Amino acid sequence: MLTRIDHVGIACLDLAEKVAFYESTFGLVVVSREVNEAQGVREAMLHVADGPAGASYVQLLEPLGPDTPVGKFIAKRGEGVHHIGYGVRDVSAALAALGADGLRLIDERPRHGSMGASIAFVHPAAMGGVLTELVQAPEKVHE
Amino acid sequence: MLTRIDHVGIACLDLAEKVAFYESTFGLVVVSREVNEAQGVREAMLHVADGPAGASYVQLLEPLGPDTPVGKFIAKRGEGVHHIGYGVRDVSAALAALGADGLRLIDERPRHGSMGASIAFVHPAAMGGVLTELVQAPEKVHE
Repeated sequence: MLTRIDHVGIACLDLAEKVAFYESTFGLVVVSREVNEAQGVREAMLHVADGPAGASYVQLLEPLGPDTPVGKFIAKRGEGVHHIGYGVRDVSAALAALGADGLRLIDERPRHGSMGASIAFVHPAAMGGVLTELVQAPEKVHE
Repeated sequence: MLTRIDHVGIACLDLAEKVAFYESTFGLVVVSREVNEAQGVREAMLHVADGPAGASYVQLLEPLGPDTPVGKFIAKRGEGVHHIGYGVRDVSAALAALGADGLRLIDERPRHGSMGASIAFVHPAAMGGVLTELVQAPEKVHE
């Protein structure tokens, strides 16, 4: 079902500072910046590698306020890894399969994610404490 | 410097149970099992994808006891993502570059990691709360 590690989602308090750090220290390049009001985050995607099934990224996430999911995460656990995103070919099919397995889902249906992807989250309680995102990249994003 | 996301290291209390879960739910396949006494873990590497710079894995880690780094991690934060491993071409060169940048390192010199890799850890305090591993895969591991 999983085609790749799509991204590591990292919660941080200062997006500009963390982007500059990953750029200067590791030579990563920002390929997308977005504000996602629905998820309460300002984010940047930094390209790590390309692969046969798509690219891999570091996703840096800054909460838009303390009363957002990422804001609460940082208040409780500090900055750090917030979630892991895996590539799937068909996120609707993946959700159906996981639902049939009885896994606790956060999203019953796909929603819009970064860079035009269709995404859905699986609850960390079903995943041994790992908030897990399924990512179906839009067609033609890797030209 | 970073060639790929090599692996996501996930701390768990019951390795056999978590391996079975990732196998049955996501179709991942275990490609290596090791006990690393020095690090105090029993682990399994599950293959996710191949790429031009090497493969990507989910690494499941069960502590050998409560008084190990992963045991203490779980006691403090619960099961979940323990660290992120990124591929590098030359881990010694990467350590030298990061040391020159003033980053706080856990390992000043490479040591033996999973599947014959040379690895080194960067301190999470230098990485916004993310325990970060650099992984130089052994030659000829991807045949």
